[in-house]
Amino acid sequence: MNFASDNWAGAHPAIAQRLLEVSAGFSAPYGAGTLDHKIEQKFNELFEREVAVYFVSTGTAANSLALAAVNRPGGVSFCHREAHMLEDECGAPEFFTHGARLAPVDGENGKIDPLNLKAEIERFPPDFVHAGQPMAISITQATEIGTLYQPDEIAGIAQIAQAYGLPLHMDGARFANALVALELTPAQMTWKQGVDIVSFGATKNGCWCADALVFMSPELAKDLPYIRKRAAQLHSKSRFIAAQFDAYLYDDLWLDMARYANAMAERLQKGIVNSTHARLAWHAEANEIFAIVDKAHANKLQEKGAVFYQWNPPRAKPGLLSQNEVLVRLVTCFATEADQVDRFLELLR
Amino acid sequence: MNFASDNWAGAHPAIAQRLLEVSAGFSAPYGAGTLDHKIEQKFNELFEREVAVYFVSTGTAANSLALAAVNRPGGVSFCHREAHMLEDECGAPEFFTHGARLAPVDGENGKIDPLNLKAEIERFPPDFVHAGQPMAISITQATEIGTLYQPDEIAGIAQIAQAYGLPLHMDGARFANALVALELTPAQMTWKQGVDIVSFGATKNGCWCADALVFMSPELAKDLPYIRKRAAQLHSKSRFIAAQFDAYLYDDLWLDMARYANAMAERLQKGIVNSTHARLAWHAEANEIFAIVDKAHANKLQEKGAVFYQWNPPRAKPGLLSQNEVLVRLVTCFATEADQVDRFLELLR
Amino acid sequence: MNFASDNWAGAHPAIAQRLLEVSAGFSAPYGAGTLDHKIEQKFNELFEREVAVYFVSTGTAANSLALAAVNRPGGVSFCHREAHMLEDECGAPEFFTHGARLAPVDGENGKIDPLNLKAEIERFPPDFVHAGQPMAISITQATEIGTLYQPDEIAGIAQIAQAYGLPLHMDGARFANALVALELTPAQMTWKQGVDIVSFGATKNGCWCADALVFMSPELAKDLPYIRKRAAQLHSKSRFIAAQFDAYLYDDLWLDMARYANAMAERLQKGIVNSTHARLAWHAEANEIFAIVDKAHANKLQEKGAVFYQWNPPRAKPGLLSQNEVLVRLVTCFATEADQVDRFLELLR
Amino acid sequence: MNFASDNWAGAHPAIAQRLLEVSAGFSAPYGAGTLDHKIEQKFNELFEREVAVYFVSTGTAANSLALAAVNRPGGVSFCHREAHMLEDECGAPEFFTHGARLAPVDGENGKIDPLNLKAEIERFPPDFVHAGQPMAISITQATEIGTLYQPDEIAGIAQIAQAYGLPLHMDGARFANALVALELTPAQMTWKQGVDIVSFGATKNGCWCADALVFMSPELAKDLPYIRKRAAQLHSKSRFIAAQFDAYLYDDLWLDMARYANAMAERLQKGIVNSTHARLAWHAEANEIFAIVDKAHANKLQEKGAVFYQWNPPRAKPGLLSQNEVLVRLVTCFATEADQVDRFLELLR
Repeated sequence: MNFASDNWAGAHPAIAQRLLEVSAGFSAPYGAGTLDHKIEQKFNELFEREVAVYFVSTGTAANSLALAAVNRPGGVSFCHREAHMLEDECGAPEFFTHGARLAPVDGENGKIDPLNLKAEIERFPPDFVHAGQPMAISITQATEIGTLYQPDEIAGIAQIAQAYGLPLHMDGARFANALVALELTPAQMTWKQGVDIVSFGATKNGCWCADALVFMSPELAKDLPYIRKRAAQLHSKSRFIAAQFDAYLYDDLWLDMARYANAMAERLQKGIVNSTHARLAWHAEANEIFAIVDKAHANKLQEKGAVFYQWNPPRAKPGLLSQNEVLVRLVTCFATEADQVDRFLELLR
Repeated sequence: MNFASDNWAGAHPAIAQRLLEVSAGFSAPYGAGTLDHKIEQKFNELFEREVAVYFVSTGTAANSLALAAVNRPGGVSFCHREAHMLEDECGAPEFFTHGARLAPVDGENGKIDPLNLKAEIERFPPDFVHAGQPMAISITQATEIGTLYQPDEIAGIAQIAQAYGLPLHMDGARFANALVALELTPAQMTWKQGVDIVSFGATKNGCWCADALVFMSPELAKDLPYIRKRAAQLHSKSRFIAAQFDAYLYDDLWLDMARYANAMAERLQKGIVNSTHARLAWHAEANEIFAIVDKAHANKLQEKGAVFYQWNPPRAKPGLLSQNEVLVRLVTCFATEADQVDRFLELLR
Repeated sequence: MNFASDNWAGAHPAIAQRLLEVSAGFSAPYGAGTLDHKIEQKFNELFEREVAVYFVSTGTAANSLALAAVNRPGGVSFCHREAHMLEDECGAPEFFTHGARLAPVDGENGKIDPLNLKAEIERFPPDFVHAGQPMAISITQATEIGTLYQPDEIAGIAQIAQAYGLPLHMDGARFANALVALELTPAQMTWKQGVDIVSFGATKNGCWCADALVFMSPELAKDLPYIRKRAAQLHSKSRFIAAQFDAYLYDDLWLDMARYANAMAERLQKGIVNSTHARLAWHAEANEIFAIVDKAHANKLQEKGAVFYQWNPPRAKPGLLSQNEVLVRLVTCFATEADQVDRFLELLR
Repeated sequence: MNFASDNWAGAHPAIAQRLLEVSAGFSAPYGAGTLDHKIEQKFNELFEREVAVYFVSTGTAANSLALAAVNRPGGVSFCHREAHMLEDECGAPEFFTHGARLAPVDGENGKIDPLNLKAEIERFPPDFVHAGQPMAISITQATEIGTLYQPDEIAGIAQIAQAYGLPLHMDGARFANALVALELTPAQMTWKQGVDIVSFGATKNGCWCADALVFMSPELAKDLPYIRKRAAQLHSKSRFIAAQFDAYLYDDLWLDMARYANAMAERLQKGIVNSTHARLAWHAEANEIFAIVDKAHANKLQEKGAVFYQWNPPRAKPGLLSQNEVLVRLVTCFATEADQVDRFLELLR
C-alpha cells in the first residue's frame, strides 16, 4: 500500500528494457547521437511544431533552466504561493538565475488567481529599477494539490503574460496525468493556449531519470546550450535519457501509464467519499488525492503498512483541519496495484 | 575503429542488466532507499574508512560541487592550466561557487608543478582582501593527457595543501584507469597520500550515468545536502545510479574494465612507436594516448573509418608539432575491440 | 514644499564642512586610517560594547551584505511582505547571497506578526533539504510605513529568532528617527532586545553617503572583509565616509536632526487630522507620514509646488482607498522648513 | 615622503569645496537631478559623442559592472595576467558576472601581447559549449606597472576584439595620467581606437569617491540600470558624485592634476637613474614608477619616513631581482610635494 509518491516507483519494464537494448555500440555523446536526434524529432511531432528540446536529469533542473533561459537582472517570476519551484526546490531556481526572485501569487485550488497575478505584476512599473522587473510566469500542470488548469484558465494566464511581454512556463512534472485527464493533445495544453516553455517530466510517470525542457520557439533557447552545460546538466551518454523517452513515447505508453495512475487515484477518491474514517480535502483531478484523516487513524493506517506523507494544508484553506486531524496525500502511478488500493480503502471503511 | 572518447560507448551489459533487475517495486527516493545505503556502505569498504558519498549525474557536477562544498568568498582554487575543470566545463565550477576563481598552475606532463603551485599560492598573503583567498587545490588522476601522478607526487601536492590549510580534491573522471595502472588501492591513491575529496567517475568506465562525490571526512560535506539539492543534482529515483554502482563495484568489474581499457591503450601505444605514419607525442599511462600524425594521413585515417579528435597541444610543449602535423587523441574503454586497434595500427604502418 | 523623500536633501552643513576639513594630507586607505579607527571606537561607545563596523556606500549594500554574512545554501530570510529589501532593492539581497530567498511575512502596521513569522519558519523542518533552510530574520526600524517596533515587539521577534537559531537583522535606514521617537539608546533598541546586525543608515538623516554595517558580535562578520571587497564596497579613500560619521555623531547632531525631522512630521500629521482635504491613512511615528487625498486635490497640490510620491497601499489594508482617492507619502528631514510645512497644510485646509 | 599610492591622498580643495557648495537644497535623487544631467552632458562633450554614463563608488564596481553589462553564460574575458581586475579585486568581476572567467593573457611591460591574445581566444571554437564562450577583452590604461598602451597598440587589440565580435573595455583607474602622458583626447584614446567601455576613474586623481562607467554606445548598457541597482551601486544622493566631477572636469583641473602627478613621477624616475642606491626596474610612463632597491636600504628609507609598498615582480621578468633586492613601487599624485620627492632622492644618492 505505497501511496507516498510517484517517485517511489522504479521504471516501467518496457523503459528499462529499452535502456538495456541500446547499451551496446558507440554513439556520439552530448546529445549528438542518432537516438537523441530521433527523440528530438519525436518531440516536434508530439507538439505539432518545431520545438527545441533539452534533456536534463531532474525536474528541478528543468524548471530552473527554464527560468535561467529567460533571466533578467533584478528579475521576478510569478508562480503560485505553493508552487513546487517555490517550496520544494531548495532555492534552485534562484541559484540558476543568480538570484531572480519567485514572487508568490495566491489563488484557490492550487491555481494562480488571474486578478492576483495582475495586481502583483502591476507593482512593477516599467523602468522603475528599485522594484526589479517582471521576467516570467510559471504555472504547474497538474498542480501541487492535484487539481488542473482548464484550457481557458491557461489561456487567461497567457493573455496576462502576453500583455506584459512575459514568457509563460509550465511545470509539467505530471504533464501526462493532466493531459489524459483533460483529454487534450500536448499542443492543445501548451502553445495553443499561449505556453512558451514546458518542463516535460517523465521520471514520475514510469521513467528512471528523464526530464526534457521544451521551448516552443527555439530562439528563446539560444543561450541554453551554454547555460545547461555550465549547470552540469549536459550528459555525455545522453543516450541513456533518449532511450527512456524512446520507450516512453512509443505506442502511447506514457498516456496509458498516466491514464492508469489517474484511474487508481479516482478509485481511491471514490472510496474515500464513501468511507467512515476519512473525507476528501478537495476534489482532485489527476494522480494525487488529498484526504483528511483523524490523527489516530492515520497512525493506524501506517501501522497496517500504508505508506504516505502528511501534508501542509494550503494557506488558502486555513480552517481545513480540526485539531486532531491531519491532511494526507496519496499518490498513484503506473506501479500502483488495484488490490492495494482496495485494501487501503478497506482500512478506511 | 572508434577512439573518440570513452563516453562514446554505452554501458557494460552487467550494468544495464542490473538496472533492469531493480526496476520493479517501491523504494524510498532521494537517496534514502536500501540500495542507496548498500552502496554507501560499499564505498566505506572501498576506501577503508567512513566516507560521505553523494551521487550526481555528471563529472562536471561532481567537480563543481566539490569546490562548492569548500567555497569561500573571494576564493581561489589551484589546478593545472589544462585541467578539465578549467578548460572543458564551461565555467560550471565558477557558477557553482558563485564566482570563486580557478587559478591555472603550469607544469610538465599535465601535472601541477609543486614549485609553481607554491609560488602561485604565495601571491595570496593572509588577510590581504584585495587578492582574495586560497580555497582548494585540485589534481586530475589520470590527467587530461593520459599521464599519472605517482603516489609520492600526490603526497607532495598534499603537503603543500596542508601547509596552507587547503583541502585537496582529485578529479577522478578516470579514477579506475589510474588505479589499476599504478596498482594501488583506492585508499592508497587518495587519503593515504592526503587527498580529501574525490570525484569518483564511473560513467566513462562502463556506466550509463554514475558519478559519486566522495568526502574522506564527512564533516567537510556538512552543507552538501543543501548545495546539491539547490544545484538540481538530488535525483528522486536515485536507485538508477545506485544500481549502476552495484554492478560496477561487484566482483571487481570496474577494475577489470579499466585494466582492459588500459591494455588496449598500451597496444595502441606500442603499435604507434613501431609505425611509419605516426609518433607518440609523449608516453601515456592510462587509457588515453596521444599521437602526432601528418595532417594528410590523419584525414586518410578518418576516411577509412577511424574516429578520433584532434587535440590542442599543451601550452608547455610549444614546439611539439611541425606545420603539417596534428596532435591526435586516442581513447580506449571496455568496449574497444582488439581487432579494431589492430586494424587502426595497420593503417599507420 | 518638498516631502518627496529624505534623500532629496543634500548634506547638513556641519557634515559637508567636516569633509572639507579632512581633505588634506595622506592617510592609510581602505579603512586603515586614523579617522576610520576613531569612528570604529565611537561605534563601540555608541553601542556600549565591542562591535564590528563596516562602512558602505548605500543602505542596499548594508542590507545585502548583512544577509551575505550569514548566508547558507538554500537559505531563506524572513522579512515583512513590504520590507524595503523585498520591494525596493531590485533583488540586491538575493544577488549578494547568490539566490537566498526573502520570504514575505504578513503583519499589520508594517510590522512582522510574530505568529505569522513562526508559522512561516515552521514550514522548514530541520534537515528537510527540499524546502531549504531558514537563515535570518530582518525587521525595519522605523518601518517602511513610518511605524515603530516597540522594544518588547523587537524582543518578541528576537525570541523567535533565538528559538530557531537565526540571527536578527535590523534595517536601520531611519535608525535615528526611530531611536529618538522611542527615547531609547542604540543598545536598548538593538542588542539588548536581541538584535544581532544593524544597517546603520546616516545618508537619509543628513549625510552625503554614509552607511555602516554593525555586527554586535564581531565573529558573525569573520568573512565580511572578503565579502565586502568582492562586492566592490571597500572604498579606498574611506576617510570620506569616516569624516561624515565624525560630524554626524559629534555632539548629538544625528539625534538633533532626527528629532527635528520627526517634529516636522508630527506637525504635518496634526495638520492633516484637522484638514478638510486629507485624512491620515494611519498614525505614523517617525519622519514619514501617510495621508489619503482626493486625486484631484493631490494634483492641485502638485501644481501648487508640493513634491511628494503616491504610494502603493499596503496589501494588509485592501479597503483603504475609495476609487477617487490616492495614498500620499510625506517625508521630512533636517532640511524641511517649518513654513513649508505650514504652507502645505494651508493648501489642505 | 608618501609614495604608497594615489589613494592615500584626500581630495583636491576645489573638489571638496564644490561638494560643500552643493550641499544645500532639495534635488531629485538616484541620478535624476539637474547636476547629474549636467555632468552627463559634460561626458558627451568630453568624448565627442553621445555616451551612457553611470556613476559608481569604486573602480572595482566600474570594472565589474562593465563585464556584467556584456555578460554571457560560460563567458570568458581576456585581460593581462597581472591586471588589477584579476589580481586585486577579490573576485568582484567574477561575482558580478555570476562566475564568468577572467582568462590571463601574458605580455611584456604589463600589456597584453596581441599574438598571445589571439592564441587564447582561438582555444574557444564557436559553439563548442565545453570551453565556454569569449565575452570581452579588457586592457588597463595606464597599466598596473605604470606603462602605457600606445594608440596603435590599442587599435591592434581592438582589431582582434572586432574580429571575434567582442567588446573592448578599458580600465581607466589612471585614465587621466595616461591621457596627458600620450597627449591625446579622450576620444582619441578610446573609441577612435575601438574601445567600447571605459572605467573612468577620478578617485585616484584627486576626488573623494568618483568613478564613472562610460559606454560609447548606449545600447550596450541597456540592462545596466537594473544591474547597477541590484549591485547596490545606485546612490540616492548622487549629487555627491556629480559635484566632484563638476569640479574635476572644470577648467581642466583633472588634466592639470594628472600632469603634475606625472611630472613628479618623472622627477623621481630621473633621480633614480642617477642614484647610487636604486635602479629603475623598467621605464614607467605615468604616475607610478618602479625601482629596485637593496633590502637593507629599503628598510632604511622607511625608517627615515618614506612610505611605499614592496611589489611582486611581474611573472614575465623572472630574473629581475637578485636575492637581497626588493621591487619598490612609488606613486605620485596631485598632493605629492616636490621637496618630498627631492628629500627621498637624496636618501638614494
